[in-house]
Amino acid sequence: IPAPCVAAISDKLISKGMSAVSSLCVCVSLQMYGRYTQDLGVYAKEEAARLREGSQRRSVSERSRTLDLLEYDKGRCAKCRICTVRCQKFLISRVGEDWIFLILLGLLMALVSWVVDFCIAICLQAQKWMYGGLDSNVFLQYLAWVTYPVVLITFSAGFTQILAPQAVGSGIPEMKTILRGVVLKEYLTFKTFVAKVIGLTCALGSGMPLGKEGPFVHIASLCAALLSKFMSLFGGIYENESRNIEMLAAACAVGVGCCFAAPIGGVLFSIEVTSTFFAVRNYWRGFFAATFSAFIFRVLAVWNRDEETITALFKTRFRLDFPFDLQELPAFAVIGIASGFGGALFVYLNRLIVQFIRKQKAINKFLMKKRLLYPALVTLLVSTLTFPPGFGQFMAGRLTQKESLVTLLDNRTWAKQGIAEEFDYISHSQAWKHPQVNVFVTLVLFIVMKFWMSALATTIPVPCGAFMPVFVIGAAFGRLVGESMAAWFPDGIHTDGTIYPIVPGGYAVVGAAALSGAVTHTVSTAVIVFELTGQISHILPVMIAVILANAVAQSLQPSLYDSIIRIKKLPYLPELGWGHHEYYNIRVEDIMVRDVRYITLNCCYRDLHDVLLTGHLKTLALVESAESMILLGSIERAQLQSLLSQQLGRPRRLEYIRERAAAEKKRLSVVSNPGSEDGSQRANHEVRFQVREATARGAHISRARFSWFFFCWQFFCSVICPLQSSPSSSLLLFYFLQIAEWEEQQLDEQVNFNNCKIDPAPFQLVERTSLHKTHTIFSLLGLDHAYVTSIGRLIGVVSLKELRKAIEGSVTVKGVKVRPPLASFRDSGTSSSENEATELHKLWDRHKSMSLPREHVPSDSDEKSQ
Amino acid sequence: IPAPCVAAISDKLISKGMSAVSSLCVCVSLQMYGRYTQDLGVYAKEEAARLREGSQRRSVSERSRTLDLLEYDKGRCAKCRICTVRCQKFLISRVGEDWIFLILLGLLMALVSWVVDFCIAICLQAQKWMYGGLDSNVFLQYLAWVTYPVVLITFSAGFTQILAPQAVGSGIPEMKTILRGVVLKEYLTFKTFVAKVIGLTCALGSGMPLGKEGPFVHIASLCAALLSKFMSLFGGIYENESRNIEMLAAACAVGVGCCFAAPIGGVLFSIEVTSTFFAVRNYWRGFFAATFSAFIFRVLAVWNRDEETITALFKTRFRLDFPFDLQELPAFAVIGIASGFGGALFVYLNRLIVQFIRKQKAINKFLMKKRLLYPALVTLLVSTLTFPPGFGQFMAGRLTQKESLVTLLDNRTWAKQGIAEEFDYISHSQAWKHPQVNVFVTLVLFIVMKFWMSALATTIPVPCGAFMPVFVIGAAFGRLVGESMAAWFPDGIHTDGTIYPIVPGGYAVVGAAALSGAVTHTVSTAVIVFELTGQISHILPVMIAVILANAVAQSLQPSLYDSIIRIKKLPYLPELGWGHHEYYNIRVEDIMVRDVRYITLNCCYRDLHDVLLTGHLKTLALVESAESMILLGSIERAQLQSLLSQQLGRPRRLEYIRERAAAEKKRLSVVSNPGSEDGSQRANHEVRFQVREATARGAHISRARFSWFFFCWQFFCSVICPLQSSPSSSLLLFYFLQIAEWEEQQLDEQVNFNNCKIDPAPFQLVERTSLHKTHTIFSLLGLDHAYVTSIGRLIGVVSLKELRKAIEGSVTVKGVKVRPPLASFRDSGTSSSENEATELHKLWDRHKSMSLPREHVPSDSDEKSQ
Repeated sequence: IPAPCVAAISDKLISKGMSAVSSLCVCVSLQMYGRYTQDLGVYAKEEAARLREGSQRRSVSERSRTLDLLEYDKGRCAKCRICTVRCQKFLISRVGEDWIFLILLGLLMALVSWVVDFCIAICLQAQKWMYGGLDSNVFLQYLAWVTYPVVLITFSAGFTQILAPQAVGSGIPEMKTILRGVVLKEYLTFKTFVAKVIGLTCALGSGMPLGKEGPFVHIASLCAALLSKFMSLFGGIYENESRNIEMLAAACAVGVGCCFAAPIGGVLFSIEVTSTFFAVRNYWRGFFAATFSAFIFRVLAVWNRDEETITALFKTRFRLDFPFDLQELPAFAVIGIASGFGGALFVYLNRLIVQFIRKQKAINKFLMKKRLLYPALVTLLVSTLTFPPGFGQFMAGRLTQKESLVTLLDNRTWAKQGIAEEFDYISHSQAWKHPQVNVFVTLVLFIVMKFWMSALATTIPVPCGAFMPVFVIGAAFGRLVGESMAAWFPDGIHTDGTIYPIVPGGYAVVGAAALSGAVTHTVSTAVIVFELTGQISHILPVMIAVILANAVAQSLQPSLYDSIIRIKKLPYLPELGWGHHEYYNIRVEDIMVRDVRYITLNCCYRDLHDVLLTGHLKTLALVESAESMILLGSIERAQLQSLLSQQLGRPRRLEYIRERAAAEKKRLSVVSNPGSEDGSQRANHEVRFQVREATARGAHISRARFSWFFFCWQFFCSVICPLQSSPSSSLLLFYFLQIAEWEEQQLDEQVNFNNCKIDPAPFQLVERTSLHKTHTIFSLLGLDHAYVTSIGRLIGVVSLKELRKAIEGSVTVKGVKVRPPLASFRDSGTSSSENEATELHKLWDRHKSMSLPREHVPSDSDEKSQ
Repeated sequence: IPAPCVAAISDKLISKGMSAVSSLCVCVSLQMYGRYTQDLGVYAKEEAARLREGSQRRSVSERSRTLDLLEYDKGRCAKCRICTVRCQKFLISRVGEDWIFLILLGLLMALVSWVVDFCIAICLQAQKWMYGGLDSNVFLQYLAWVTYPVVLITFSAGFTQILAPQAVGSGIPEMKTILRGVVLKEYLTFKTFVAKVIGLTCALGSGMPLGKEGPFVHIASLCAALLSKFMSLFGGIYENESRNIEMLAAACAVGVGCCFAAPIGGVLFSIEVTSTFFAVRNYWRGFFAATFSAFIFRVLAVWNRDEETITALFKTRFRLDFPFDLQELPAFAVIGIASGFGGALFVYLNRLIVQFIRKQKAINKFLMKKRLLYPALVTLLVSTLTFPPGFGQFMAGRLTQKESLVTLLDNRTWAKQGIAEEFDYISHSQAWKHPQVNVFVTLVLFIVMKFWMSALATTIPVPCGAFMPVFVIGAAFGRLVGESMAAWFPDGIHTDGTIYPIVPGGYAVVGAAALSGAVTHTVSTAVIVFELTGQISHILPVMIAVILANAVAQSLQPSLYDSIIRIKKLPYLPELGWGHHEYYNIRVEDIMVRDVRYITLNCCYRDLHDVLLTGHLKTLALVESAESMILLGSIERAQLQSLLSQQLGRPRRLEYIRERAAAEKKRLSVVSNPGSEDGSQRANHEVRFQVREATARGAHISRARFSWFFFCWQFFCSVICPLQSSPSSSLLLFYFLQIAEWEEQQLDEQVNFNNCKIDPAPFQLVERTSLHKTHTIFSLLGLDHAYVTSIGRLIGVVSLKELRKAIEGSVTVKGVKVRPPLASFRDSGTSSSENEATELHKLWDRHKSMSLPREHVPSDSDEKSQ
């Protein structure tokens, strides 16, 4: 008997290490592979036919066109017309090309980014104008300063909540999950796009410490998904799911790229943040789209006369010839390590706030009722504290995020020997200089206040990211260290010859890269920093600091995005830690679930019913028989439900009842005709006897079917009552029991799998596969579960849940390593390899003896059955 | 009968999208997976046991240590001693950590890179000194100028040839192949390391237009492999093959990183050049090691007083505030497009030279005899042409590669309105200024001459790369365009306000990135350029040019590395082109080989023998029976050979003959005893009858076994001749035939697979898998072949060869798209999906009827057998 466990991961592997987002349904796509496979096959076939047809049609039209050409040749404008038709056709045929799509995507995103930036700038200017205009009265000034952001944030929160709650937050965690192959409902719709763009503009326009980078990754993906839908009107290729995934991956790069005008950093950041395995061929797409997008984004600024030419967003002017001394490196390393701790603390704080609000039931209840109260309260608190005439004066409160960053990256030293320098502070830098307070105090206050403010603000349910606030805090921290160094070594460290004073701005660059790298667990923030500042001279300090920050942060906390994934309980697989050898030693047999729910090929509908009632798995294994346990494929739950309902659904039930009723009618009419009283008496007697018998048999009828019986009762009454004026209750019961008996009979029939879609290629592992490899495969192929087989025999199943448990069990957050579950049983399991050998030889022996195979399988269940 | 086609790609997938380099054997690793799997299983088990034992031992030693502690507590230095012991143990336990390995690797490679650079510099200085000292006599000068490189190159070629011919060339193509999972013999040995380092130093010291970047990737991988071997003396974790692959990937990044002091570019370049799928978790490793390596490499320069502090290798000093005007962008685009064509031409030229030399049999023969003649001739030609007082004066011949690059990136403009500027040319820039000839002519000559020289020089069989020469040519081309632009717009393009003159150095940067990007088909050359020059202000022009260059070059020619892979016929899978939709429509059934060689579970040794004789595949499919064709697994050829030799090898043959001889002896002695003459007569008669019979049967005995028969004859003679004085030839023939008959009998026995290692998890596809997905899977999992099955039934096989054919068939180099083979038969194949459904239902029906399954399979072979 053949076991069709075809290992077609192929049809399961959706687009190189990432996965499927083919339709916007809520379920995990993996569980639909069976159908996808078939759909795709059919689709590919149709597509091929269509193409062939198209080429034939084209050749036909070509011929007709030449005819047309001859015909119209006399007319003057004919040539032009033919030319335009040709061009049009050519253009339409080109619409399917990748680069057209990428250019459109880049253009669109650049425009969106620029418009959003423009609106944010106007919002912020309006606030400043209001604040500035009311300088006669401090209270009015305070009101204006506070009300404006509260209104904007509340509007943003409300608008998002009403239009598309999916638009809330950064979007990177969701994109990471989507690119892994999980289909999240409503995350890539037009509604979400509108909500995200408008919500983000309002949220950032309020001046709260929020970022636009995370949301832009989401917006770019939305753009790509919508554009893909739109383009599919022209060409069929846009319907291909693996292509769509590739485009989404490119879109993530565009998102970061057009937000910071950082194409390279954008590509790298998006890879690090969203992928586990990256197809190098997508790399190209990302670069292309991100570069185009960044280019347009900057060109718009030039056209708008904001800039003279295309330069970096936060251009710095550090000296080139001697950027830093070798002996300053320890200071950079200190920034890196401190940023690592700071980043971990930020992630922890952010999670703590979310969990605190969730756990406190009283608060939670209150906030749930007034959904907009929480954002308003947080905004009120933050903007009160930054009120410039108030506490804000000690923390440069009047500067917007962008202004603070520009001043922090300034290439001059603010303080010399602890006293503020007396040079001409240009415009914004003035804010850091307080007449009474040292610049160091201002910086420390800024860092501490912004730190918790950002952690708090990113928990507001509006579209917002945390990258930019963290970036600014990092820059401030770097500036603090730099100013301290400058105060410590007023003439620089370099001893021989020329004096090279220390550049605190360089420290700010290093700090910004390190802290944002620590929070997001990425190295590519280094590249983003270079592209943002337009200078790469500090490459080695930045790289060293970022790597150290990552090393520290990764060993303490998950990244901000992974933390959000955990909070939101999105179906995602945690990363394997760095250098944990035990993953090579834990094996699938240690973590798999041995009690697999399965259905057999010769099972009856009752088994199906029971399996469906007891388990909640979305797919079930189909094995040859309970004795052999040979895996044949997997079937979706929905398929089984439809099978069951075909066999025992309302239509068949009704049909049976109708038949039954007809027969009864006939019988009654026959009985009642000959001797009316006597006949009915005899019939009654007969019925009673049957009832008694049936009651005995039907005692186990489940109560769940009561409602159905009630329906039957009504039906019977309507059919039979006209014949027999008073149906005795015992008679009715008899009928019901008869129906029940019929149902039982139906359930005992063997299942006919003919009309059932079976996935012939469920993913399989062997029991000795290491955890490391299992993780690799799950993330490469975007699996949800895999069956564990031993020479075709199903012995267990591993799902994401088990894998997650195993990984998190051995690498707890606090750094304590726990032994993997069941690892202690491994010694006793040395028999498994022998076992396999014996299995194979049994197979061989069985084959050799050429007798009926099933009787020779010496399994437990076999012994039981004998 | 269970079909054990366990889809354990798991145990087949070696390290995330890349593959296995576990032992240095010549065969393609894929074909050894069966064994690997088992070995790994056993290994993992032993490892686990070892770990457990270790932990027990540790706890015991812990206890004993505390006892020791108590005992020695009185002694004074006891504490210190205990402390050191503890530290030592801790350190040893840490040796297994990744970061230790990476730091060591980085350190080692930085040292190697620095020493190589130092030696090259000395070599070049020596040449200059010789050339400078002989300025009295031009002929002597010429001799010195020419002999020096010829000797060095000849030595390099000879040394490499003798010690390790594997060290020849760039090494990137080989690393790409190795990272894909193919094990190349001797490519990662100490000998190769020595040959590569010394050969490279000599080759570059000669001043030929060669690069060190490709070889450094190879050297770093060699370093990693050797270091890994060395470290495995301390900890067992280094024996893990997937870990080794991860380390090799990091090593490639280190190679580029420490060569250019470009950590980010190094990582990206190595990813683009060597990987198809990249595990993001390796990214981190690469960054860490490459940064450390680049840092040490630059620190060594500072310590050696070459530099004041850590800066870029080819530092530029372009102005920051207005790097370029928006209207200059078309010029940058032109550089990009021209570089694309140039890059394709370079690859084509390089291949043409190799193929020309190979094809010209006369030349080839001559060169094969005198292996060192070709390098010497090429060197002679190149150095003659660059001789400074000769033709070299028109092409800045006296500058070394490094010097040319430094001068080309100069931030001043050389020419104004066609006339060379009269400013003070510092040192090397002087070389570009010729009293009679325009600077444009010099540049053009430089570009043209260096172009073919580089293409020619890289075909010399010495360790050398092509990146640096191409980079310099690109820079020269960029400079040419820049100078032209400067001559055209002497006051810059920017119209309003300040005059910003054009910076030709910026064009040189763009040109360098574009041309090297076009030749290698990478985008990351942009990042390398930024890191090399220490300025990122030209990011957008560079990105635009690189992307355009890539677009052009990729559509014309394969990358240089892929070209070398094709020339060397390394087992590698070509990349799918960009945006070729047809890959989604071609399916496995179109390209697969339908005539699969297989063995059945109940086959006899004769079948095995025949299969082994006819095919040359390294693995064979094992199916249940020829009728059912259910795939059970795959067996290596070697395994089958050993099976066959067990059954019919020398030991068994000897044993049989010994038995036979003993029986004969006994019979003869019995026969000869009773009636001597009569008995032997009767025996003779008997024998003759048997002989006739046997001759008739044994007529088909193959002649191949004649030698074996000869051996048998001798043996028989030695045993029987002493008994019977004159063995008649017919009697001997009888014996032989009897042996032959025995052999035939042996061959007709059923094969016993008991002692045979069967890979229960050969990789399987279904027939509808698209070419796109098949390519993805092959490159992700590093497969060599995959079986195509339909519900467990083997219907075909796809190997790398078919896949390569299909891909290259549909994307030929000249851009002509050919229909894939067999694609036209697809229409007729619409039955396949129906077929599958029928198969499954047949399976089900068969199962339902519960009769002997094999008689109900309605396959062709079944009908035949009836």
